[in-house]
Amino acid sequence: MCELLGMNCNVPTDIRFSFSGLIQRGGRTGPHRDGWGIAFYGKRGCRTFHDPEPSCDSEIAKLVGRHQVKSLNVICHIRKATHGKICLENTHPFTRELWGRAWAFAHNGKLKGIKKRRLRFYKPIGTTDSEHAFCWMLDQVRQRFPEPPKSDRALRRTIIELSAELDESGTFNMLLSDSRHLYCHCSTHLAWLTRRAPFGPASLIDKEMTVDFAKETTARDVVTVIATKPLTHDESWQVMERGSSVIFRDGEPVPV
Amino acid sequence: MCELLGMNCNVPTDIRFSFSGLIQRGGRTGPHRDGWGIAFYGKRGCRTFHDPEPSCDSEIAKLVGRHQVKSLNVICHIRKATHGKICLENTHPFTRELWGRAWAFAHNGKLKGIKKRRLRFYKPIGTTDSEHAFCWMLDQVRQRFPEPPKSDRALRRTIIELSAELDESGTFNMLLSDSRHLYCHCSTHLAWLTRRAPFGPASLIDKEMTVDFAKETTARDVVTVIATKPLTHDESWQVMERGSSVIFRDGEPVPV
Repeated sequence: MCELLGMNCNVPTDIRFSFSGLIQRGGRTGPHRDGWGIAFYGKRGCRTFHDPEPSCDSEIAKLVGRHQVKSLNVICHIRKATHGKICLENTHPFTRELWGRAWAFAHNGKLKGIKKRRLRFYKPIGTTDSEHAFCWMLDQVRQRFPEPPKSDRALRRTIIELSAELDESGTFNMLLSDSRHLYCHCSTHLAWLTRRAPFGPASLIDKEMTVDFAKETTARDVVTVIATKPLTHDESWQVMERGSSVIFRDGEPVPV
Repeated sequence: MCELLGMNCNVPTDIRFSFSGLIQRGGRTGPHRDGWGIAFYGKRGCRTFHDPEPSCDSEIAKLVGRHQVKSLNVICHIRKATHGKICLENTHPFTRELWGRAWAFAHNGKLKGIKKRRLRFYKPIGTTDSEHAFCWMLDQVRQRFPEPPKSDRALRRTIIELSAELDESGTFNMLLSDSRHLYCHCSTHLAWLTRRAPFGPASLIDKEMTVDFAKETTARDVVTVIATKPLTHDESWQVMERGSSVIFRDGEPVPV
């Protein structure tokens, strides 16, 4: 199994506090030593950092921890390999383009028989179940909507439907973005919280570190963080129900 | 205009020496201050680093310069924006997937009327001529070869043909990889050299730095480096002719 971390905001936000907690689980406070990766979205563009090394020792993770990258939307993954060997091409998040948008995907869980699902437009580069599942989802979206749907709602419903279908094949904890929304599905473990004014302090579980968000934010900032397990011990995380989905845009959950 | 740097080898090789020279041109010895990016290939996977900041001051460039990433194939680009604003989505190299292979592309030059060319499978995320040209090339390859061609030669010929067609629309200095080959096309400026035993020392033009490759290599290493302008002043660079292509695999030029 692996751990996931996502962030979705209404203003470009620094994820380093949450990231510092998560990467400890990549070999120090957790066993997820088999690589890690992160996708940062700007308005349209997406840049990724991938490293097959354990995140707790990774030079690239240290850079990401040191260097402020403000982002509207982030997907991060630390890996404990179950399917597929440890190598660059098996390191999440995976990315593809559809309708001129950058899509990024990270997954935790196992999916039985996923590789029997035929693929048309998108093919995996590595050998993980996860990348196959991502290619299949995008294939399905592309077949239903060869052009970008006018209604975001139709797209949201499609993604929830596809996530529910994959959930039936095994464990499908997933973070997905089309550069606008952050789509999240919980098979077993995902928890989220939204920070907004009045902001207060928060302390990490995995590392001795406290931030006073009141000093780091403006009154109109809305920032949602989602992770496999809560990252702080003094905030109210909303633990997702098994088999449920939630979609965020501009830092807020959006109705499906 | 921009500057390009590529490397193709028969064993994973450290590009830091060449990279150190190139990034000086990103704001110090050259005017290419509008972002930079690099794609490193492993056997199948490809990881990229993108930064809209000038490479000579970039924290990420410093990391890439400090941290050894050995790679079989590299494409690097430093940008002087001509078309499209300075932002992440306009930062080369661009990447897409075809046949389960990671393709990466970087370009220098202007292409007249390129955006009139219709696209089918691949759409640009940013607004550069270059990304449109890349999408068009991959579209053409995909239409001709819905499945990966059995003959690499057929693919090589197709790419040379498409490059020649784009060359007619303006300036098309290009580096492209399908994770196996490094395809290079020269409209105006590209020069390359192949380092092989017996290795000797080499000194950068843009920075005071000398490496004795005899100490860094084994007798069987074959490493080709290609760049807009020669990076060293004590080696014999082969300056490409206008309108010509060259393709490398395992460090060696391959016949078309």
